[in-house]
Amino acid sequence: MNNSFGGGDAAEKRNREQGSELLPKFDDRGLLSAVVTDSGTGEVLMVAFMNAEALQKTIETNRAHFWSRSRQSLWMKGESSGNVLEVQEMLVDCDQDAIVLKVKPAGPTCHTGARSCFYRRIDGGELVDASR
Amino acid sequence: MNNSFGGGDAAEKRNREQGSELLPKFDDRGLLSAVVTDSGTGEVLMVAFMNAEALQKTIETNRAHFWSRSRQSLWMKGESSGNVLEVQEMLVDCDQDAIVLKVKPAGPTCHTGARSCFYRRIDGGELVDASR
Repeated sequence: MNNSFGGGDAAEKRNREQGSELLPKFDDRGLLSAVVTDSGTGEVLMVAFMNAEALQKTIETNRAHFWSRSRQSLWMKGESSGNVLEVQEMLVDCDQDAIVLKVKPAGPTCHTGARSCFYRRIDGGELVDASR
Repeated sequence: MNNSFGGGDAAEKRNREQGSELLPKFDDRGLLSAVVTDSGTGEVLMVAFMNAEALQKTIETNRAHFWSRSRQSLWMKGESSGNVLEVQEMLVDCDQDAIVLKVKPAGPTCHTGARSCFYRRIDGGELVDASR
């Protein structure tokens, strides 16, 4: 799956982990993980996936774009609701297969109307309201 | 891909989004996304994947377990380094295909020795040191 780690390609691994070049490592579906946090509070708002086009459009427009696995299509968060995510900062992880977007959300991020998609805590096998 | 949304299963969708039952929605690879944050600072430390066994062991032991896609095996974070992640709180998202683990890390989370795997910022197509 992680074909870039095959063949003992230590130079590529080093470039990816220590270099200053953006070398996104998409998985076998062409996707990487994207975590959205509120730039003001640090709260995790949502988790989604990006393909190369979603990443490029996010960088170009400073508005978060993702790849929908269920719809198999590119989407801009807020394109229908208006609740766009203005990107303040983007971070990439060590092996460049995950991105953190620190954003200023225009409204609730979750389609349920919640501020964050993570509105429930796992508590002894049950889910309880995590709102504070 | 999201077969649970096929057939107009509105009741299942509602249960998953609004219920108090943990009904993890694994993808076609049997995985869900797991985001690890520092319970003290809120900083995103790493992103990985969990299969059903990793999720179960994490809940049982309060230590973060993941599924390695490259090694195709279950692993406990810190099993070799000692830098385990003690789980303080677990959140699940609206459609239960992503988990946030708020943890107390025993040491640097990244295998590079960095506190977080997200040590670089994307800045105009280049990566720059994100440490503060």
